[in-house]
Amino acid sequence: MHNLARLPEKEVEERIAIFQNTLQKNALDGALLTQNIDIYYLTGTLQNGVLFIPCTGAPCFFVRKSVKRAAFETSLEVQPLQKSKRMAEVLKEKYGVIHHLGLEKDVLPMGLAERYMKWFPQAKVVDVAFMLRLQRAVKSPYEIRQLQQAAKRVNEVVISIPHIIQENMTELELSAKIEYALRVQGNTGLFRMRGYNQELVLGMVSSGYAAATPTYFDGPAGGLGVSIVNPQSASMKPIKRGEPILIDISTVVEGYIIDQTRMAVLGELDSELVVAYEEAKKIIREMEQCGKPGVSWQTLYQKALAMAEKAGLKEHFMGFGDDQAKFVGHGVGLELDELPILANGFDQPLEVGMVIAIEPKFTFPDQGVVGIENTYLVTENGLESLTFANEDIIHIPVV
Amino acid sequence: MHNLARLPEKEVEERIAIFQNTLQKNALDGALLTQNIDIYYLTGTLQNGVLFIPCTGAPCFFVRKSVKRAAFETSLEVQPLQKSKRMAEVLKEKYGVIHHLGLEKDVLPMGLAERYMKWFPQAKVVDVAFMLRLQRAVKSPYEIRQLQQAAKRVNEVVISIPHIIQENMTELELSAKIEYALRVQGNTGLFRMRGYNQELVLGMVSSGYAAATPTYFDGPAGGLGVSIVNPQSASMKPIKRGEPILIDISTVVEGYIIDQTRMAVLGELDSELVVAYEEAKKIIREMEQCGKPGVSWQTLYQKALAMAEKAGLKEHFMGFGDDQAKFVGHGVGLELDELPILANGFDQPLEVGMVIAIEPKFTFPDQGVVGIENTYLVTENGLESLTFANEDIIHIPVV
Repeated sequence: MHNLARLPEKEVEERIAIFQNTLQKNALDGALLTQNIDIYYLTGTLQNGVLFIPCTGAPCFFVRKSVKRAAFETSLEVQPLQKSKRMAEVLKEKYGVIHHLGLEKDVLPMGLAERYMKWFPQAKVVDVAFMLRLQRAVKSPYEIRQLQQAAKRVNEVVISIPHIIQENMTELELSAKIEYALRVQGNTGLFRMRGYNQELVLGMVSSGYAAATPTYFDGPAGGLGVSIVNPQSASMKPIKRGEPILIDISTVVEGYIIDQTRMAVLGELDSELVVAYEEAKKIIREMEQCGKPGVSWQTLYQKALAMAEKAGLKEHFMGFGDDQAKFVGHGVGLELDELPILANGFDQPLEVGMVIAIEPKFTFPDQGVVGIENTYLVTENGLESLTFANEDIIHIPVV
Repeated sequence: MHNLARLPEKEVEERIAIFQNTLQKNALDGALLTQNIDIYYLTGTLQNGVLFIPCTGAPCFFVRKSVKRAAFETSLEVQPLQKSKRMAEVLKEKYGVIHHLGLEKDVLPMGLAERYMKWFPQAKVVDVAFMLRLQRAVKSPYEIRQLQQAAKRVNEVVISIPHIIQENMTELELSAKIEYALRVQGNTGLFRMRGYNQELVLGMVSSGYAAATPTYFDGPAGGLGVSIVNPQSASMKPIKRGEPILIDISTVVEGYIIDQTRMAVLGELDSELVVAYEEAKKIIREMEQCGKPGVSWQTLYQKALAMAEKAGLKEHFMGFGDDQAKFVGHGVGLELDELPILANGFDQPLEVGMVIAIEPKFTFPDQGVVGIENTYLVTENGLESLTFANEDIIHIPVV
């Protein structure tokens, strides 16, 4: 049917084994998974359907569309999804009576949940989303290779920046040139997010006051956007000399997202902003020192926040005033908002294999946003950066 | 804070009045709306929060982030969202005891629904998604103007096609050039979809067998995509002479999506495909004749299907074999998959002001997809096309 690269069968086997182990530990008879990314992660295909994973034995992927493509792409058993009434019988025949069932309560819409729960008339429902997200947070060597490939591509863009930025070009023009370069290499432009109502496509390229405009997006910099109904990222604002230009770009390789931020300026940046950028670099260096297996997620956030406060920049950290984001880093992988979350309230430990984008940033409402972001792999020896673009502010000379 | 165009206050007032009327007719005390697009539609801001609309009286938008930007953008009352425990008290103080509550059961995740339902301990929940979607299907003159502007932009791209297609360029390269042209004019690249697990960004530019590859996407042409985890739209496949090139492109103006498909070919198309394309045009002409207020949605699908069958193309209509999409058109607006749905099972009538993308297409597994798509406004006199690009196959001479 096609020659696209496949997710190695061994990945699928190992992932299912780990998840089944989790089901057993939580005394669940099985889980019905429905979200496209969870399904891809556990099957190797993104076709549309529902995946039943029993706590032991073989899973079955019930496919709506395309059955043919799903059967070609996954090594698991594939069956056509049947009418709701019949599904209850099929599942009972295959897996017996389910008393304790896992569902992804964070993403599964209420209406669908009610329909699927009728397939398991005797089941109590337990939310398995966090368990599965925790498993997905720890990356395999295969997954890390995709992220490394993505990191190379965003580095190439950073190298090209001095050749494409021009005074008075709009943010959209700059963003479109960057997007084009990544797109022809295979970027999808879609940075999948799990959070309800969160969305990010293309890039977050923004300058001056536009970058500092507060927005719904759960991140340190939103951006003005092209309209009130798309209130984030690049806008029609021209890029002027002296403004901090935030180049927060991602690209996707085999579904895996890398996240990196660098700064550029036409001419010179105001000294206050240079100081803040240096502080962001100090914070990210400190994160690199502290980020070791066993350290809790919130510890990193608390350290970063303390440093920002000591530098007199607390009000500017990760957004301004009431519009601050309350984290300093987030997991990345098949989704942009994966675990771990480096934020208060998360006392879980870092584990070897976790991948985290760490992004200390400072917002100055009328001037813009400065900061840095790298994507790190947690190793036995601490954090290892997957992104490797030069961290100096990119200075574009102006006449 | 910014100079982005606002949704006119009158739009918001009228939309809320219509929705409150629907709540009253359905004996609902109020609705708690949570999805970003529903919220934008009824408030004029896309900031993140929950909107309570009582069946009479003033709504209130409880905002998570950014309260400041939301208050700037909407004319409705804005309050900061409070902790869950406090929300129950705030809502009771403001709106009294709610016995019958509307929720968007098609999109609201189960976990959030359970949380919000605790705010209304005495309420029975009713799904209001279809009611609101039915209201949104009928567009105002303001909305139609945005769609008309978007139609101009996609026409400009069609005109430029002969200058940008080259033999052996990849689908991605062609797609990226089209995307660039639309992007610098303000396209967001995000074609929002309401359907669970449905997603579409950038464009659907695909050629030959790649366009005919079946996929999860609920449409007549999926496309090979760049990877198994992004299995739709443009791929790394080079475009060869004689292949049908499907240029199914959309752009967004003030959130409103236009949808249009045209065909191109390097050299000449196989005569079988030319015949199928002519049949697609005949079907769309028939749709234009039949599409009048009062005609049921399914009638149009049944007529199209009958014509495809009579032409001996039933197995190829809207996808091939088991992978056929079961509709011939869909509403467009702030989302790509709006009402009406021209499909069996929908006996609702077309109404003046509805906007529908109609897209008869034929799939030939080894050769590709041919077809046409226009976006129509339902007027008192029948369908009026908002898209106006020349419908001839774009022939690119090859040496």
